[in-house]
Amino acid sequence: MAAPEAVNLKEKFGQFSEYWAPRIAGELNGQHVKLVKFQGEFVWHSHVAEDEMFLVVEGRFRMDFRDREQWLETGEFIIVPRGMEHRPVAPEEVSVLLFEPAGTVNTGTAGGALTVADPQRI
Amino acid sequence: MAAPEAVNLKEKFGQFSEYWAPRIAGELNGQHVKLVKFQGEFVWHSHVAEDEMFLVVEGRFRMDFRDREQWLETGEFIIVPRGMEHRPVAPEEVSVLLFEPAGTVNTGTAGGALTVADPQRI
Repeated sequence: MAAPEAVNLKEKFGQFSEYWAPRIAGELNGQHVKLVKFQGEFVWHSHVAEDEMFLVVEGRFRMDFRDREQWLETGEFIIVPRGMEHRPVAPEEVSVLLFEPAGTVNTGTAGGALTVADPQRI
Repeated sequence: MAAPEAVNLKEKFGQFSEYWAPRIAGELNGQHVKLVKFQGEFVWHSHVAEDEMFLVVEGRFRMDFRDREQWLETGEFIIVPRGMEHRPVAPEEVSVLLFEPAGTVNTGTAGGALTVADPQRI
């Protein structure tokens, strides 16, 4: 097997501009590394069996939970446990790296127009 | 369950200075998010059943493989597949985020003095 290549986050984020549409940038141990840009307000949702990590690469956003809000700045991450309702809100564009199990759907059990069931690879 | 807190990478990296001793900064889906500082040359090793992701948060290092070398700059990541021998080398201090299955031992099957079998949480 050939040695793996480095992946440059800035370069990858430069390859797309669509919001709320995660791209798969890596896979390991049944997990996906996804890159996504947010702007505006996402839908409230939760995931039945998947914990989800959000790491801010550039910009900032607010994660709303039912009991409080948590701002996330560049260089900060949060792990949302399975079953917990959450809603990302980004007043301005933000670039986020996600770690989550392969097959995780962005809108969880909520569905709706923003659902991306089969993310592109980047 | 209470909503999770944000984790600030810079703040966490400021809490330790030891090299080659990963700290557990998060856990999700049976995987650990670890923070580690490198300087110098690690041991050649591989992992039987764990793929390992290295994301450079600050600085740069070189990942040696048996067939080539791969430099990793700040904002770049690499995924080393299970079974592939590798050796991180850092001429200067570098701060790295690791993503790997819980229980992954830093020296893999090689063992030796740099082994940290039970990483601290941070």
